[in-house]
Amino acid sequence: MDKKGFSQHISRQYNEDLEQIITGVMTMGGLVEQQLEAALDALVNGDQAQGEKVVTSDYRINAMEVELDEACTNVLARRQPAASDLRLIVAVIKAITDLERIGDEAERVGRMALHLLEEDRQRSPMAEIAALGDQVKTMLRGALDAFTRMDAEQAVRVAQEDIKADAQYDSIIRHLMKYLEDNPKSVPPVLDIVWATRSLERIGDRSRNICEYVIYFVRGKDVRHTSFEQMAAEATGDRR
Amino acid sequence: MDKKGFSQHISRQYNEDLEQIITGVMTMGGLVEQQLEAALDALVNGDQAQGEKVVTSDYRINAMEVELDEACTNVLARRQPAASDLRLIVAVIKAITDLERIGDEAERVGRMALHLLEEDRQRSPMAEIAALGDQVKTMLRGALDAFTRMDAEQAVRVAQEDIKADAQYDSIIRHLMKYLEDNPKSVPPVLDIVWATRSLERIGDRSRNICEYVIYFVRGKDVRHTSFEQMAAEATGDRR
Repeated sequence: MDKKGFSQHISRQYNEDLEQIITGVMTMGGLVEQQLEAALDALVNGDQAQGEKVVTSDYRINAMEVELDEACTNVLARRQPAASDLRLIVAVIKAITDLERIGDEAERVGRMALHLLEEDRQRSPMAEIAALGDQVKTMLRGALDAFTRMDAEQAVRVAQEDIKADAQYDSIIRHLMKYLEDNPKSVPPVLDIVWATRSLERIGDRSRNICEYVIYFVRGKDVRHTSFEQMAAEATGDRR
Repeated sequence: MDKKGFSQHISRQYNEDLEQIITGVMTMGGLVEQQLEAALDALVNGDQAQGEKVVTSDYRINAMEVELDEACTNVLARRQPAASDLRLIVAVIKAITDLERIGDEAERVGRMALHLLEEDRQRSPMAEIAALGDQVKTMLRGALDAFTRMDAEQAVRVAQEDIKADAQYDSIIRHLMKYLEDNPKSVPPVLDIVWATRSLERIGDRSRNICEYVIYFVRGKDVRHTSFEQMAAEATGDRR
């Protein structure tokens, strides 16, 4: 496999089609990263402008998903790709669904952040939430990076980071529950923070999904619903 | 288009491949419905055996997803489908992802139900939750039915039902928030009910996604991220 992660073809047009799709995924991924960044800024620092930006920009990600889906279907129809090209297209079709949903979760975080503008954010475990935000932002970055380079080993490393994100999430929810018990009058804002935290955790899950498609592409092996150990073995080709 | 929703082919084997995939989706859909049914029984009636069944049976749905994904990739590689056959395969690849996630949400509801066994469920708005459960169960049934018959008009009707599910969800969450304010010592169990309710709402969203793939298949038109009015116009062919 060459550096671009897909084989060279006799038809230059075909190559261009595939490269355009990969570039499209990267552009879409970049947009999703910007949205997540802005959502975290709104949530953690109470930046209203950033929150409003997130809520009004999601449509661009949706449009890109539809466009890329069409491009993939066109390549399937006109080029009848086989082997690794086919796996690439299937991986893209799946990855863009997750990217679009990450965009939705970022929008949700932005919306919750706007609800919380009037609230005293010192009460909530905002430092912990910021750390979870950083963790899933790094995971998303790593997943996109692994996807661009079709690097299965990096994909495994990023997927494993989800363990940390889940632990951070559990800890924040425990703190929020304790806070609710002591401050029953704060139910609505605290529940908004719960939703935002949940969305961040889901972004970690979905970044992990993207990593699984990378492993599927590189190894031709479906590693969804397997343990991290199996996933690592598949990615490095240790198995069988 | 014939009753099966895909055109007849010269190769009998090809036909069989496509029919097998559709049958597989239906079998997977049936399993997911059973899981949702059992999860609701566990949540609403406190049936422990049903809750345990849900939590231990999800792997079967996961296995079916992987199997069907492979079958679709094989048809793409060996049969190089075009036009409506290609759209069918793409619709299946997308629909099974949603079905698998509906299975995950049902498992989550089952797990929350097991947490709640020791609790006095009379305090929570269980009748309302049962009604939301019925609503999303009906939506899932309708979505699977529309998918089997590739009936775009039914798909629109089912997708529109999501408005009702969202309203039911909002009302339950409002009641739970009020309850939390008055009963701060009940935070953990009430939050479990919040999660279960959220999962039910997501099952409605995902059933709606499946309907959108049916419309995509029948009309060759992507209706994601559009309004219900646009969706209905596309499904009935009113537009342009």
